[in-house]
Amino acid sequence: MREQLLHKINNKTKPLGSLGLLETIAMQVGMIQGTTSPAINQPHIVVFAGDHGIAETGLVNPYPQAVTAQMVLNFLNGGAAINVFCRQHNITLHVVDAGVNHAFGPAPAGQSGDRFIDAKMGLGTANYLEGPAMSETTATAAIEKGKSIVQAIAGSGGNCVGFGEMGIGNTSSASLIMSAVTGIPLAACVGRGTGVNDEQLQTKINTLGQAYALHRLPELRHQPVALLSRVGGFEIAMMAGAYLQAAEEKMVIVVDGFIASAALLLAQLINPSVVSHCIFAHTSGEQGHEKMLQHLQATTLLHLGMRLGEGTGAALAIPLIRSAVNFLQEMASFESAGVSNIEATT
Amino acid sequence: MREQLLHKINNKTKPLGSLGLLETIAMQVGMIQGTTSPAINQPHIVVFAGDHGIAETGLVNPYPQAVTAQMVLNFLNGGAAINVFCRQHNITLHVVDAGVNHAFGPAPAGQSGDRFIDAKMGLGTANYLEGPAMSETTATAAIEKGKSIVQAIAGSGGNCVGFGEMGIGNTSSASLIMSAVTGIPLAACVGRGTGVNDEQLQTKINTLGQAYALHRLPELRHQPVALLSRVGGFEIAMMAGAYLQAAEEKMVIVVDGFIASAALLLAQLINPSVVSHCIFAHTSGEQGHEKMLQHLQATTLLHLGMRLGEGTGAALAIPLIRSAVNFLQEMASFESAGVSNIEATT
Repeated sequence: MREQLLHKINNKTKPLGSLGLLETIAMQVGMIQGTTSPAINQPHIVVFAGDHGIAETGLVNPYPQAVTAQMVLNFLNGGAAINVFCRQHNITLHVVDAGVNHAFGPAPAGQSGDRFIDAKMGLGTANYLEGPAMSETTATAAIEKGKSIVQAIAGSGGNCVGFGEMGIGNTSSASLIMSAVTGIPLAACVGRGTGVNDEQLQTKINTLGQAYALHRLPELRHQPVALLSRVGGFEIAMMAGAYLQAAEEKMVIVVDGFIASAALLLAQLINPSVVSHCIFAHTSGEQGHEKMLQHLQATTLLHLGMRLGEGTGAALAIPLIRSAVNFLQEMASFESAGVSNIEATT
Repeated sequence: MREQLLHKINNKTKPLGSLGLLETIAMQVGMIQGTTSPAINQPHIVVFAGDHGIAETGLVNPYPQAVTAQMVLNFLNGGAAINVFCRQHNITLHVVDAGVNHAFGPAPAGQSGDRFIDAKMGLGTANYLEGPAMSETTATAAIEKGKSIVQAIAGSGGNCVGFGEMGIGNTSSASLIMSAVTGIPLAACVGRGTGVNDEQLQTKINTLGQAYALHRLPELRHQPVALLSRVGGFEIAMMAGAYLQAAEEKMVIVVDGFIASAALLLAQLINPSVVSHCIFAHTSGEQGHEKMLQHLQATTLLHLGMRLGEGTGAALAIPLIRSAVNFLQEMASFESAGVSNIEATT
């Protein structure tokens, strides 16, 4: 299959290799789908939202915890960046309450037709400065819930999915997970998140250092469920499960930014082959993401200095993935177009 | 206007600056259009095709000159990469015969509905190893023709345009122009083009060095018409004129890769303000482009290692420009969405 794909790519009317990363993506999507005629059907973005007990301490984030729920309502009303980009690219958006500290009720109002999924695991995690963020049972349940959400999407015919998140305080969880799994020192994994200043950044690093020591995270570096239980978030756990199911369903997975990549680290501990299904959308402006990508040996499609989350990087990368599939499907070959190939002349 | 735009950007429901380069683009498009509600109307890509006398020597390019005409027919039949990407993004494609060494006739057949413009300045340029590529009169006429093509597009309501090119041998012209205008040594401006090997690359550098000396290019570094006459191409001259008119029409200009950037260097010599209308689509895989971008103090949207020309980089960047405009137009503000802003809590 790899050779057949390479032959098809190399016989398109273009200099050899001249479509750069798009050729790599065309090859990868063909390999995932097991065909020289891959297709991106209806793509989906699933945004997992959850709250973090530590956010209420004010030690790691400048925005109040209430913003998580406010942003979920903003998603449902179509006013957030992810709504704009999904509309632009005809991506189906799902918004999952993985555990926001707000009772949305069974069917919150939303004018945008975007889909709300109630998968609430609690009203935010517990503050992991004082104990585990959640029980291991809950972490496992969240992973399973993430799987079932993706299973439903795959069942509806979607073969491409990106995952986003919203959760005040969740860069902190992601930093702790990253440091534990990769062994990179914590300070190099902690960034400004939604925008802490220099002093707040130092406080964030010091605070997370306490959690790191309290839970003896390095000892848990091969234990994804234990890591999620100690310092995770409901949205991160659910996303980890979502990755696993998406790979199981042979979907093309579009990886967003810092938090989405941290969730992938956990999924990879459970099933190392999940990464072969992943296309890395962008290098985030969040400090630490580049090092995490190096750990994952990942090349990204976009470098726009974005650090918004919500799956926005994934949404912007989807048209590039479509372009890769489209050139493979639609471009003429040297033979069909009657264009002289370089081998014919040397 | 700049302050009004900044206020609008900063009050969208997202952390300050978190949309990265998209915020820069939103600002730039707003400034070009003089409004806080900018819009990208029907975007256009114009591909200028022309042949180069030097290509027939076989000293600078591995593909035969006939490929230029073959690729023009491929464009008209909808089978090239630029056709695929324009279809994907609803971009209107124009194909201009600026001076291909082939008689297409008044209305060559094409199934794709793409628009052919006959602007033939000759059957390819003369070989600049032996004398000027074209007369200064012809260079000026080509610039004027490029202006009139863009004037017609602007008249039809298009407010965003990207320029592409096709011409076997035209990375050589672009390298010579780049070295002359920027003062960067020729060897650093010469790359592999469509794919010369190491030995061919050395031959290309040596050959272009002869042309550089013959025409005393550094003495012409402030004289765009003279440079075009000595070592230019019809498609490059026409594109230079196209940039000038697009800026005149207050259009958003999407700059493609190495050759398109060299044409911009010439346009900039005629009107330095043209660059303020330019969004740089991508950093090409062609050696030299990055240095040219540094000279232009340009930041690019994409880094995909592409080096195909045809305007393909520009076409892939247009959805990102649309995303920038869309977030400015469609995202909710903190006030309208009832989301707590960071200033409200500190």
